[in-house]
Amino acid sequence: MQYPKHVEIIEVGPRDGFQNVKEFIPTQIKLDIINDLIESGIKEMQLTSFVNPKVLPQMADASEVTRTILKSGKKPLRPIALVPNFKGARDAYENGIRTVSFVISASEKHNMANVNCSKEESVDTLRNIISSFYDLDVRLDIATAFACPFEGMTPEDSVHDLVKIANDAGVKEIVICDTIGIANPKHVATLCEKLLTSSTAPLALHIHDTRGLGLVNMLAGLQTGIRRFETAIGGLGGCPFAPGAAGNTATEDAINMFESMGIATGIDLEKYLKAVEVVKQRIKCDLTSRMCYARTYEHEKIKLDVRK
Amino acid sequence: MQYPKHVEIIEVGPRDGFQNVKEFIPTQIKLDIINDLIESGIKEMQLTSFVNPKVLPQMADASEVTRTILKSGKKPLRPIALVPNFKGARDAYENGIRTVSFVISASEKHNMANVNCSKEESVDTLRNIISSFYDLDVRLDIATAFACPFEGMTPEDSVHDLVKIANDAGVKEIVICDTIGIANPKHVATLCEKLLTSSTAPLALHIHDTRGLGLVNMLAGLQTGIRRFETAIGGLGGCPFAPGAAGNTATEDAINMFESMGIATGIDLEKYLKAVEVVKQRIKCDLTSRMCYARTYEHEKIKLDVRK
Repeated sequence: MQYPKHVEIIEVGPRDGFQNVKEFIPTQIKLDIINDLIESGIKEMQLTSFVNPKVLPQMADASEVTRTILKSGKKPLRPIALVPNFKGARDAYENGIRTVSFVISASEKHNMANVNCSKEESVDTLRNIISSFYDLDVRLDIATAFACPFEGMTPEDSVHDLVKIANDAGVKEIVICDTIGIANPKHVATLCEKLLTSSTAPLALHIHDTRGLGLVNMLAGLQTGIRRFETAIGGLGGCPFAPGAAGNTATEDAINMFESMGIATGIDLEKYLKAVEVVKQRIKCDLTSRMCYARTYEHEKIKLDVRK
Repeated sequence: MQYPKHVEIIEVGPRDGFQNVKEFIPTQIKLDIINDLIESGIKEMQLTSFVNPKVLPQMADASEVTRTILKSGKKPLRPIALVPNFKGARDAYENGIRTVSFVISASEKHNMANVNCSKEESVDTLRNIISSFYDLDVRLDIATAFACPFEGMTPEDSVHDLVKIANDAGVKEIVICDTIGIANPKHVATLCEKLLTSSTAPLALHIHDTRGLGLVNMLAGLQTGIRRFETAIGGLGGCPFAPGAAGNTATEDAINMFESMGIATGIDLEKYLKAVEVVKQRIKCDLTSRMCYARTYEHEKIKLDVRK
């Protein structure tokens, strides 16, 4: 098996992770953690979500978080915001964001539950956003790409259709999301192999770890040619509108897997684990990651035998 | 990627799992769980360890557990006991056991910490056991096959040497153990590929989940041709004599991974999860498995799309 020399990790903790924490996280804590993440080497990050604060009060400080981070600009960062609709895209743009993640579910019922409109309406909005902001990069998150909590297994054609629409519309990246963590390595490989051939936009994977298959499915994606992965600090996350969804794959576990295989992520695991400690200490939540409890290689004084 | 139609899971929870629980588990609870595991379809299981009860008081009821299970014999079961020395093998044999797991570490210092003798002495004991009991199947667990908490990365030759010794001595199976959960998919694939060529005895993998790489490394083993895996209920386990070792890979997570890929394990996941519930309710311990918290497919009413 041949593996690449490096992969890209897109941190989604401050958006997908924080939005699933019940108690409001003070903005300064969010900013501190985001800065720690940047310090560890994270270069692409979903900072927040521009969404109706009545629906997701945790994201009510989207403007402040975004403006503060964009102003500081200490290290190179591609800041991303998730937007569920046109208003969100406009708000993000006006706050200085130039890359947004727009989400459409492959299954009709989850799209309705998640963003309160039909897939067709979401597709119209996607096209509208792309044509309205000339210098805004739009990434498409295809939610429930493997299965839906309401409709069961997702037909492959539903994903292929959305990928084609996204490519035609001019999206810059397509993220295949296992929203409820139900995919398996065979399913991931089958789907990704086909999509890597058909999509002109690059692909990324976003795998929830509900059943412990987060890293396994990322490895399956890696083996078929996926090079970009969305993960969240501490394994925070889930989906407020998908029953049974629990926890993203933890970024620190992914960094450890890739780096131990000799695949560079550009992220310093020791520094990253310090950010995890801050999350543990300052946010009320249970972390599901393994690396936040395991001793690190350094502590064990075991030298990594990186097989390049 | 071609996958096999079925794999074998060897349950080590009642030995490797229970021995890491501090508070003594009443014998009847152990027996109840073992019976639930048999009921779910487990056909090979480490029931206990015949070891000095002063060193591992949790295993002090090895005789009673073994005799009771062997007497009941409701369903087909290959009962296994772990033995660290000749006395253990004799005790196991006298209690009716006809398959033992004998353990030698690939690293000298871990062997000393684990069984209080040199590797050479362990090898002598292995030969002595095999020649002393004509109808006893001996499996060899090679501990610290990837890395040692005291010596760092394990040289491959140390593993190859032990495999050769084991084959010459007539062991029936060799189990490659990642005692501290430090292996990565590349390392597993490299080592297993070579061993599958060189070993005449069949191979199994025993991967700890310390850093969340349990299933990933099992997948890597599966891809190279490994078909037998040791796992523990709930992800219980660790190694009392290896600092930093924590948790086996959970059997229920492994069953879920294989079955969702269309690879039969012969185990009924729903029934298995009932045994996990008993562990949760009756044993004081934290379970690290994912499936014990995730809703099962049945509950979500999502039909498994088994791609054979």
